[in-house]
Amino acid sequence: MSEFFKGIGKIQYEGPESKNPLAFKYYNPDEVVFGKPMKEHLRFAVAYWHTFQARGADMFGAGTAQRPWDHITDPMDLALAKVDANFEFCEKLGVPFFCFHDRDIAPEADTLQETNKRLDKVVEKIKDRMKDSEVKLLWGTTNAFSHPRFAHGASTSCHADVFAYAASQVKKAMEITKELGGQNYVFWGGREGYETLLNTDMKLELDNLARFLQMAVDYAKEIGFTGQLLIEPKPKEPTKHQYDFDAATVIGFLKSYGLDPYFKLNIEANHATLAMHTFQHDLRVARINNMLGSIDANQGDMLLGWDTDQFPTNLYDTTLAMYEVLMAGGFTTGGLNFDAKVRRVSFEPVDLFYGHIAGMDSFARGLKVAARLIEDRVFEDFIAKRYASYTTGIGKDIVEGKVGFKELEAYTLKNGEPKLESGRQEMLEAIFNQYLLETK
Amino acid sequence: MSEFFKGIGKIQYEGPESKNPLAFKYYNPDEVVFGKPMKEHLRFAVAYWHTFQARGADMFGAGTAQRPWDHITDPMDLALAKVDANFEFCEKLGVPFFCFHDRDIAPEADTLQETNKRLDKVVEKIKDRMKDSEVKLLWGTTNAFSHPRFAHGASTSCHADVFAYAASQVKKAMEITKELGGQNYVFWGGREGYETLLNTDMKLELDNLARFLQMAVDYAKEIGFTGQLLIEPKPKEPTKHQYDFDAATVIGFLKSYGLDPYFKLNIEANHATLAMHTFQHDLRVARINNMLGSIDANQGDMLLGWDTDQFPTNLYDTTLAMYEVLMAGGFTTGGLNFDAKVRRVSFEPVDLFYGHIAGMDSFARGLKVAARLIEDRVFEDFIAKRYASYTTGIGKDIVEGKVGFKELEAYTLKNGEPKLESGRQEMLEAIFNQYLLETK
Amino acid sequence: MSEFFKGIGKIQYEGPESKNPLAFKYYNPDEVVFGKPMKEHLRFAVAYWHTFQARGADMFGAGTAQRPWDHITDPMDLALAKVDANFEFCEKLGVPFFCFHDRDIAPEADTLQETNKRLDKVVEKIKDRMKDSEVKLLWGTTNAFSHPRFAHGASTSCHADVFAYAASQVKKAMEITKELGGQNYVFWGGREGYETLLNTDMKLELDNLARFLQMAVDYAKEIGFTGQLLIEPKPKEPTKHQYDFDAATVIGFLKSYGLDPYFKLNIEANHATLAMHTFQHDLRVARINNMLGSIDANQGDMLLGWDTDQFPTNLYDTTLAMYEVLMAGGFTTGGLNFDAKVRRVSFEPVDLFYGHIAGMDSFARGLKVAARLIEDRVFEDFIAKRYASYTTGIGKDIVEGKVGFKELEAYTLKNGEPKLESGRQEMLEAIFNQYLLETK
Amino acid sequence: MSEFFKGIGKIQYEGPESKNPLAFKYYNPDEVVFGKPMKEHLRFAVAYWHTFQARGADMFGAGTAQRPWDHITDPMDLALAKVDANFEFCEKLGVPFFCFHDRDIAPEADTLQETNKRLDKVVEKIKDRMKDSEVKLLWGTTNAFSHPRFAHGASTSCHADVFAYAASQVKKAMEITKELGGQNYVFWGGREGYETLLNTDMKLELDNLARFLQMAVDYAKEIGFTGQLLIEPKPKEPTKHQYDFDAATVIGFLKSYGLDPYFKLNIEANHATLAMHTFQHDLRVARINNMLGSIDANQGDMLLGWDTDQFPTNLYDTTLAMYEVLMAGGFTTGGLNFDAKVRRVSFEPVDLFYGHIAGMDSFARGLKVAARLIEDRVFEDFIAKRYASYTTGIGKDIVEGKVGFKELEAYTLKNGEPKLESGRQEMLEAIFNQYLLETK
Repeated sequence: MSEFFKGIGKIQYEGPESKNPLAFKYYNPDEVVFGKPMKEHLRFAVAYWHTFQARGADMFGAGTAQRPWDHITDPMDLALAKVDANFEFCEKLGVPFFCFHDRDIAPEADTLQETNKRLDKVVEKIKDRMKDSEVKLLWGTTNAFSHPRFAHGASTSCHADVFAYAASQVKKAMEITKELGGQNYVFWGGREGYETLLNTDMKLELDNLARFLQMAVDYAKEIGFTGQLLIEPKPKEPTKHQYDFDAATVIGFLKSYGLDPYFKLNIEANHATLAMHTFQHDLRVARINNMLGSIDANQGDMLLGWDTDQFPTNLYDTTLAMYEVLMAGGFTTGGLNFDAKVRRVSFEPVDLFYGHIAGMDSFARGLKVAARLIEDRVFEDFIAKRYASYTTGIGKDIVEGKVGFKELEAYTLKNGEPKLESGRQEMLEAIFNQYLLETK
Repeated sequence: MSEFFKGIGKIQYEGPESKNPLAFKYYNPDEVVFGKPMKEHLRFAVAYWHTFQARGADMFGAGTAQRPWDHITDPMDLALAKVDANFEFCEKLGVPFFCFHDRDIAPEADTLQETNKRLDKVVEKIKDRMKDSEVKLLWGTTNAFSHPRFAHGASTSCHADVFAYAASQVKKAMEITKELGGQNYVFWGGREGYETLLNTDMKLELDNLARFLQMAVDYAKEIGFTGQLLIEPKPKEPTKHQYDFDAATVIGFLKSYGLDPYFKLNIEANHATLAMHTFQHDLRVARINNMLGSIDANQGDMLLGWDTDQFPTNLYDTTLAMYEVLMAGGFTTGGLNFDAKVRRVSFEPVDLFYGHIAGMDSFARGLKVAARLIEDRVFEDFIAKRYASYTTGIGKDIVEGKVGFKELEAYTLKNGEPKLESGRQEMLEAIFNQYLLETK
Repeated sequence: MSEFFKGIGKIQYEGPESKNPLAFKYYNPDEVVFGKPMKEHLRFAVAYWHTFQARGADMFGAGTAQRPWDHITDPMDLALAKVDANFEFCEKLGVPFFCFHDRDIAPEADTLQETNKRLDKVVEKIKDRMKDSEVKLLWGTTNAFSHPRFAHGASTSCHADVFAYAASQVKKAMEITKELGGQNYVFWGGREGYETLLNTDMKLELDNLARFLQMAVDYAKEIGFTGQLLIEPKPKEPTKHQYDFDAATVIGFLKSYGLDPYFKLNIEANHATLAMHTFQHDLRVARINNMLGSIDANQGDMLLGWDTDQFPTNLYDTTLAMYEVLMAGGFTTGGLNFDAKVRRVSFEPVDLFYGHIAGMDSFARGLKVAARLIEDRVFEDFIAKRYASYTTGIGKDIVEGKVGFKELEAYTLKNGEPKLESGRQEMLEAIFNQYLLETK
Repeated sequence: MSEFFKGIGKIQYEGPESKNPLAFKYYNPDEVVFGKPMKEHLRFAVAYWHTFQARGADMFGAGTAQRPWDHITDPMDLALAKVDANFEFCEKLGVPFFCFHDRDIAPEADTLQETNKRLDKVVEKIKDRMKDSEVKLLWGTTNAFSHPRFAHGASTSCHADVFAYAASQVKKAMEITKELGGQNYVFWGGREGYETLLNTDMKLELDNLARFLQMAVDYAKEIGFTGQLLIEPKPKEPTKHQYDFDAATVIGFLKSYGLDPYFKLNIEANHATLAMHTFQHDLRVARINNMLGSIDANQGDMLLGWDTDQFPTNLYDTTLAMYEVLMAGGFTTGGLNFDAKVRRVSFEPVDLFYGHIAGMDSFARGLKVAARLIEDRVFEDFIAKRYASYTTGIGKDIVEGKVGFKELEAYTLKNGEPKLESGRQEMLEAIFNQYLLETK
């Protein structure tokens, strides 16, 4: 087994004063926070596509990446080598999970038969490698958007043959996810959307999307895959409009088709902001619907209109994300998958480490701050007091369904003008800053 | 009865060559299009708030409007005068409907009791005025967002007394809407949203919103109000996040709470674009869910991030809107309410006419173009062919639920690579332009 | 010489009633509008990169394009074949110009020496092909952004060697542009911007950009290239911030460094809207600064935050663009370059024709409407009247610099409250629609 | 002299562990940072309009504010009372400056003569109050946008009488600013822009804007006002397009008209982000042009499209802002003016304190972090190394103007492919977080 990241050893926790860029300043895996070790809260995962596949290409230029496997030319040799690279990378970072699309781990061949054989070969190697590693599979998924056959969508394609092809692909991907002990299976509708309504039968496309998901539910049951099925919302890009727009839209869609018992959400920060929501907002929507399954941990540039998939370093966002996770009771099968890519000009292998360290430290700090905010009931007490009127008197009657418009009118005519209390946003933001800075 | 818009007579149709700015060029009310007179398709309405209440104030300046009722100082005299102004205005334009918030037609008094008495007085006058007019009420609604008591929301306020107050207000507004023969009742959640999640119990607020709507359904039934209940989505403004974000969100919300049988949507163009959708998109979402109830006809500035409520003059948008309306079978109780305000610098009374004429002509043209597009099956035939694979063979099996992943894999392994056809967006856009320009 | 677009003949004008998608409905090249034939006004150009190089790839998927030259495997054979394809395509469409980046017409080799030789070979063929064609070169430019060496920018790179490389490349590109009779030379600063200020010396980068442009001016003079030098603004993408943000920024930059006498602007519709301006706005800014040189004719999707480069079919935009062009006195060396790509799902060769026909017809119609608007002085008379107060009395004194604050205060104290007139936006928009629809 | 904010004493520094919401945690005025006391770096100012005039009204609702001066009904009594409130407020917070528009401190009367008399009366009281206070005037400005007369703009109005009126108003405002020892005079072009190009003579309007500013320069000289003249960019709102779009646009405009020697910029955070720039970006542009004059300290909501003017609490922004200020050599006449308003639902007087404390603490922390970043040369050393190639060899020749395209081509042909180094964005962001959290 070759070593790809030579000269880089296991990344250690050195604490906040360390000047070593290849050390953790805040992520101390075994430190107990909110009742258990950090590593059990955070359940980090490396994204195979960004870390082992991506080359730094963009719409205006070719790849810039310098990778230690660049000398390997045979596609299958390369695929197998990346398995080693993945385990080495995760182990050096102390990241317990990875995630992949089927086409990340094995290149597509001329026929589906042949492609599936390639997959089997790589899966075999991964299984083998897993035997002597603590690194596990957080989730698998299908890439049903990159190949030209998916240009019009996969399950929402105008061509039934494409629907069938995508189904075949998900079938296989679900099988290998099960085989590798994957704890979830993710659906991101890469091109499940439309470019122009002038040529689109939206109703049929949405019905077909639901049919496809129902088939997935059925097949998971049939093969005994007990991992959580997840849907990842995104509002646009690559299509003009993606059907899985945001958390609220996906939840509404699932309920419309009776699919809600079978799915949870995989919320991505950058997708939330592209939908004009804060990351916390979409997490909150998922949480209060008991559908917060997992997180794609990254961040966007709020001034740019596309998915920049940056490593998450904004501590406000990581803190509020971990706040929602802790309030939801923590992750069960889910985790924090770094769906993040180093910038095109961060092209050296060591930048992959810098990116992940930056993200892990940011979430570790976020976890600690969020934990302390909750333990001190900073917002909870404020909120409880703010809504206290619904726990007694007319408010209690409203919540318990004991009154209607007539009773409320009678009450109001007698009660007169309501008294309001300030929302105290500025004070709460200042307190948040204090917790952010002063948490030890 | 005084004449407010002196010097302006009934606006006539003069045809596309007319140079008279106070004449219709495209709106010919009795011309039969798509099986019935234009006026029966379009069901225009004047918005009381923009036309009779608004003064052209914005966040940076005071009102500029010059109105023929500016000399009236007593609030109730003014309210009663505006009833006359409304009927005169609608009649001169040939607009068959108007819409109002309770607080538009009568100013708030010191107590709810007194305010309701004022409402009764104005309603009496409207009823009286309706006797000798063809102008009717399209819908009524409640303003539960302007008064400081609604600063934290109405049914989603943190204060139960405010919930009760809003309920009392909707109760009365629904009663007068019924009394005036209103064909719909609209809910726009002016401040039903949040400013910051740091102090917000989103779950309780959404539950309360649903409780409120259920009370409205119950009360409508109790008093025998048979008009359609409508919800109007908007994503943000005035609050940072409005719960009724867009059509998909509202439909999902209604289904979650079992409220979907009782409501349809009132789609506003500018609200759709603030939610980062095209106007047509939100109409389409409503249509395929059988929830397209009515339309707030205006347009936003795509480069500005707030609700500009401009008069609708973009013919692409009016055509595609009428396309969705016709495809939905036309309006039943709904209509095209001009929720549009003249620009702050269009401050003369005659500008109110120019604005409405511009909007009415734009929708009339849109109607004719849409009708011809549908009659010629321009998009329908293209779409039918595009999705034809779902009407036969494996596609039919998918739609009919006869196959699952295993059958589809077997099919694909045999079928090989799908064949794709071009989406032809550029050709379709060129044809659209031709219809837009050449429709007679 | 092979025929690539078999089965497609010369595209003819058939008039607005034609149902033939491969015919012009509005572009009648020899029809005289505003004093000269349409074709002399519009000066269309085909963009080599989109039409002959692009494959429909995006950030989430591989190319989908089906092109008649796909069977050619040798890079130089392919490059030479595309020369034929370009001339055939332009001739069939009746497009008089094309535009290219150096790397579009000849693929990069291992060394700059070798690359330049390849360029020479292709240039020779183009020159040869020009002998018996009316198709000319509107402008050439350099691709100094796609190769990884330009990852940090070209003239604004942090590495002096990259600055030197870019200079060498522009030198050669300018030479071949001259050799091919190119009427302009364009600078689009593909990666002249920054990703993060944390590592950026903005001052040095801007100074270097100016130094680079000065060298270009000097070299053009030295070799006697008399074509117009053009800068094309864009606010972002691929970099987070592009220095040539918009027309106003570029003009300010040029003036700061004394470069304004040597440059004009190449305004792109989609770049203007990405900068949160209307297309017309940036054209107007260029026009009133006497810097409107040429146009990249396309359109963006106003709800998407990246450069979609769609074919221009919005008649509002094409009309207002041609309005600015006519008001500027028409193009001299500039023209309308279709910097537009067929959608990824419009992957057939014929879609290239549909796209260009759609764009050409839209600009032809825009030209005719704009001409009639100007001939009838629709806006000009309104504007003249609106600003009339500056042609007499105190207004004239202001314009002529005869008064200062003291005189104006004295005037105001006597004059009292100014009288205002309505801006009549709604009326003007309605008139605009009438001209759009009724122009013959 | 009455006490308005009873029960609130002088706000003290209590350090980061304090739980007292009415104490500073980070702002310790006399603590020496980067060579001088914090208070001398930060030069905070209270904005008269938000703190003493604003009522929390928005486009959808009336004011909610509860203020201790609400019982005063006579306009001039109220105006005079607010002078006391201002000094009391500034003194309790330890804020050394305030800023005002002319119309904030005295209400407009029926004539300009009368209005000016009112101004004189209030100015007299302010002067009197200044005698026994350390609170000073940072800058004055004119409100030439709220009154209906400015509906079409002030110096860019289509009506010459309005230009004259605005000139009279600025003349007076500049006089009183001088009288009160104001250290700057600000121009914010509230409605200096356009609503639609259909009725706009952009060239004349820009020329008039320049004429107006020239008159201001002349008048300042005439009366011996030696304060700095400042222009405050904003891209839109209230008008669709504001001429002073952003820092780059304003600098270009000033240079075009030869006005650049007389003006600096007042950069507002929320205006920068509305222009799609980071706050730091616009500060940097101003800095490298030696035009960074003063700051309007607030923050916007990156997901909302209007000027929310929130109190600045984002520590990333405050740190990077102070980084630019320190790199520019610190403020001279400028300062940090809180152009920020408490949220509409933060309606109690104490919220005014919470807001300012939040902002002052955030900037204090930002100052300390920025100082340490600079002292440790964290970014400076990285940048120096990154651009080192311009200090020697061919890079030095480029910077010194010794080479042109020919020399650079010769160099490149010999030099071959440039070597690039990573930009290390992820590593730098992680270091930034460490400094943010660990600075003592």
